[in-house]
Amino acid sequence: MNKMHGTWISELKNLLQEDQVTVNPTVLEQHSKDESYHIPHLPDVVVFPKDAEEVREIMRFAYKYEIPVTPFGLGSSLEGHVIPYQGGISLDFQLMNQILEVRPDDFLVRVQPGVTRTQLNKELKKYGLFFSVDPGADATLGGMAATNASGTTSVRYGIMRDQVRDLEVVLSDGRMIHTGSMTAKSSSGLYITGLFTGSEGTLGVFTELTLKVHGIPEVTTAARAVFPSTEAAVRTAVDILSAGIQVARIELVDDRSIKQVNLYNQTDYLVKPTLFIEFHGNEAGVKHDVSFAESIAAENLCEEFLFEADSKAIAKLWEVRHNLAYAFAHKSPGKKMMVTDVCVPISELVGAIKDARLAIEKTGLDGALLGHVGDGNYHAIIMINLSDSEEVKKAKELNAHLVDYALSRGGSCTGEHGVGIGKAVYQRKEHGDALDIMLDIKKILDPKGILNPGKIFKG
Amino acid sequence: MNKMHGTWISELKNLLQEDQVTVNPTVLEQHSKDESYHIPHLPDVVVFPKDAEEVREIMRFAYKYEIPVTPFGLGSSLEGHVIPYQGGISLDFQLMNQILEVRPDDFLVRVQPGVTRTQLNKELKKYGLFFSVDPGADATLGGMAATNASGTTSVRYGIMRDQVRDLEVVLSDGRMIHTGSMTAKSSSGLYITGLFTGSEGTLGVFTELTLKVHGIPEVTTAARAVFPSTEAAVRTAVDILSAGIQVARIELVDDRSIKQVNLYNQTDYLVKPTLFIEFHGNEAGVKHDVSFAESIAAENLCEEFLFEADSKAIAKLWEVRHNLAYAFAHKSPGKKMMVTDVCVPISELVGAIKDARLAIEKTGLDGALLGHVGDGNYHAIIMINLSDSEEVKKAKELNAHLVDYALSRGGSCTGEHGVGIGKAVYQRKEHGDALDIMLDIKKILDPKGILNPGKIFKG
Ligand SMILES: Cc1cc2nc3c(=O)[nH]c(=O)nc-3n(C[C@H](O)[C@H](O)[C@H](O)COP(=O)(O)OP(=O)(O)OC[C@H]3O[C@@H](n4cnc5c(N)ncnc54)[C@H](O)[C@@H]3O)c2cc1C
Ligand SMILES: Cc1cc2nc3c(=O)[nH]c(=O)nc-3n(C[C@H](O)[C@H](O)[C@H](O)COP(=O)(O)OP(=O)(O)OC[C@H]3O[C@@H](n4cnc5c(N)ncnc54)[C@H](O)[C@@H]3O)c2cc1C
Repeated sequence: MNKMHGTWISELKNLLQEDQVTVNPTVLEQHSKDESYHIPHLPDVVVFPKDAEEVREIMRFAYKYEIPVTPFGLGSSLEGHVIPYQGGISLDFQLMNQILEVRPDDFLVRVQPGVTRTQLNKELKKYGLFFSVDPGADATLGGMAATNASGTTSVRYGIMRDQVRDLEVVLSDGRMIHTGSMTAKSSSGLYITGLFTGSEGTLGVFTELTLKVHGIPEVTTAARAVFPSTEAAVRTAVDILSAGIQVARIELVDDRSIKQVNLYNQTDYLVKPTLFIEFHGNEAGVKHDVSFAESIAAENLCEEFLFEADSKAIAKLWEVRHNLAYAFAHKSPGKKMMVTDVCVPISELVGAIKDARLAIEKTGLDGALLGHVGDGNYHAIIMINLSDSEEVKKAKELNAHLVDYALSRGGSCTGEHGVGIGKAVYQRKEHGDALDIMLDIKKILDPKGILNPGKIFKG
Repeated sequence: MNKMHGTWISELKNLLQEDQVTVNPTVLEQHSKDESYHIPHLPDVVVFPKDAEEVREIMRFAYKYEIPVTPFGLGSSLEGHVIPYQGGISLDFQLMNQILEVRPDDFLVRVQPGVTRTQLNKELKKYGLFFSVDPGADATLGGMAATNASGTTSVRYGIMRDQVRDLEVVLSDGRMIHTGSMTAKSSSGLYITGLFTGSEGTLGVFTELTLKVHGIPEVTTAARAVFPSTEAAVRTAVDILSAGIQVARIELVDDRSIKQVNLYNQTDYLVKPTLFIEFHGNEAGVKHDVSFAESIAAENLCEEFLFEADSKAIAKLWEVRHNLAYAFAHKSPGKKMMVTDVCVPISELVGAIKDARLAIEKTGLDGALLGHVGDGNYHAIIMINLSDSEEVKKAKELNAHLVDYALSRGGSCTGEHGVGIGKAVYQRKEHGDALDIMLDIKKILDPKGILNPGKIFKG
């Protein structure tokens, strides 16, 4: 490929309009990295398709010349997903950003992959609807489907895969398929919609998505519950779930995180382990759930249980929570962010968080713990100085330790961020011989290995 | 294979204990058919493995000699799934019927594939838990996972695929894999758990399942709402969903079905289109939901809205609903049952049911309509005399008409029963070029074509 570098880019330019194919250094640089500690690498060219037909042409071209193609949404992923380590084409979907159809009666939308979730929610609000998956960062729906994103609301509404009804996918050789239908359920054929969801651009390129949306709940109430220890907070979360209380979000934010929150947002939250909780439902139901949750918190020595009453206070609460990673990133100049992402069965969560806290302390690194505890998914945020090899080593060891701990307890190395390159090394350990099946599937869908090479599968 | 028939069966007998391998004609006959109109065919032998290791040995053996293997749960499927049209081994899981582990804090169970859902629910009750998928018929969890079953409660708790966290699968060559983990979510690797779920024994044999279970709700209330027309009933269901009322079940039973219900159960329900509805939640929330639902029904000219107050009355209601197919089967001597199973987007449901009623009338056949209307999934039950070729032809045309109608409106040919042989003919129409990807996957997982040959994929 490299041999004919100059040639193929000018040939590619002939396929599209001039401003759709660029080698502008700034644009290349923007497409060389994500938000994490992974080392950047430039693509040869960035291409901006306008529709599925153009994507097909680009893929046919890339297939013919065996040029790597790395789909690019907003580049907010955290494991090097979008970094084109083998160069080639970075395929940016910002021109494919149309909301094609809202079907309120079906609780469905049809969108192009470059639509962002905030853009979608703005439109859906007019219909009394919302899109539930909320990874905090803004992100494209194509990128979210490709990483199988989830977030604060998944404990109630499910993960990205639960929302995807149909994907229009362009395959590595330019063929195009639809994976599903518009129905709430189907037992027809093999379930490849779920296979493509979470495939991180390694099996095909999404050019259209049909997604489930939800009615905005009648009543939303949020609360902040402060605890003497992280364990007490986690235990409360576990007890609330066991009691069958249908929380819409239940987030752990540890004391170290609260400190950063206050610093970044000028809030004055008590610097103690805290649960941020949200309830959705009808008025009577929510009232009942909230007081039940409060009594469970009290049993776990909750020190303060505060309601956020109006919609502004609730919005502020979640803004603060969602900006947590940025609160670290923007207040740590010169450092890069490593966010671990293991997931364990709920019964293992108290032990796991305790172990994680100890493990962080042992490294001597400055790390915070937070997470979607309702799903057993938690993150350690570590800010690292990439030029300090000792610090990098320690951070990587910590990550490996957390993964090992989770895997030994029936867990997963990544609850939501995905594999990218950062978790590729754990795939064999987590999946055993099942990885061979995944590799076989990769091979039939991408026989030339041009789709986001090196991601998920060590390549 | 047939050449060496006598030889391989005696060789197979050496691998297992005597009573685990049988050619007893009665047992062969039991494994030659399902509950539907599809033509029976005998297996050469029925084998009863005791554990995963035995399944592996059987598969290695079958792989070596290229002998077809058709997994068999309870044989309650409706599209010829378990009928071994190419003979070979019928692999019956009745000896693998252990509940291996209940993890109440994780809302998980680990079971062998031959465990039935009623057996599981009996055990779970001790923990205040229940398994939500309820296809009416009793069925094994292995069979339910293999067909991606769903049923009355799926509108609230999801389909079988939503419950499957991990499958232990023996592949066609005897390799064994685990597809998932015990966590609520994961973005690691490719999602093959969902691929195997619904694969109808064509990709691998399940030897263990880790499944999600749910807490028994604080309050359960059921209601029966009677309408002047099927359309009014369906519209009510659609309106209730649009209003965001979280029903746990919402079932349409048309007047023809009610007539059969009364005949079979000695009930005296009004012979009119009826919705059977169930609500789960806390007391205050359910009360609110019920009165909201009642007012929506009233707007649609509901003639009677009756509560079933105590748990016995509720159980009776659902028993009656679940016995509906049997009510036809057992009161139609000499006839066989065809149950259609299309699914459409909710917004298409009123028109679809109207069209189905007209289509049935046009054939002159005696048919009833019922369905899981909350999911857009409905069935026409037609009892046919297999020796009357005109009747068979009409029933098949009706089935084809309903499928075409659904597919032309973004629907699916099968909402829950699966493909078997009955819906294989519609796979290309429904999936287009995506079927080629499914065929590729079939080929890598079952290169010799020994796993339930002829099912899903026309053989
Ligand atoms: C502060 C912060 C907080 C975060 N919190 C969460 C969280 O709570 N939960 C969570 O899940 N994630 C979280 N993330 C990670 C990130 O937001 C998600 O991974 C998101 O889904 C990425 O979307 P994107 O549009 O930025 O995709 P990108 O980063 O651009 O791409 C992600 C992957 O998708 C592929 N891709 C993109 N578009 C397509 C397409 N059209 N077809 C095929 N493949 C495509 C890319 O090749 C890449 O492999 C967080 C990130 C940050 C920075
Ligand atoms: C009256 C009636 C009502 C019904 N209502 C519903 C309904 O509401 N919803 C619904 O979804 N279905 C319904 N069904 C269909 C049926 O109950 C389901 O398809 C059920 O899931 C079949 O389970 P089973 O154990 O009987 O499996 P079987 O019929 O024995 O097998 C079904 C399929 O699974 C495969 N299989 C079985 N065990 C394994 C294993 N261990 N590993 C791999 N493959 C395996 C078989 O090869 C076959 O392809 C109904 C059936 C009847 C008779």
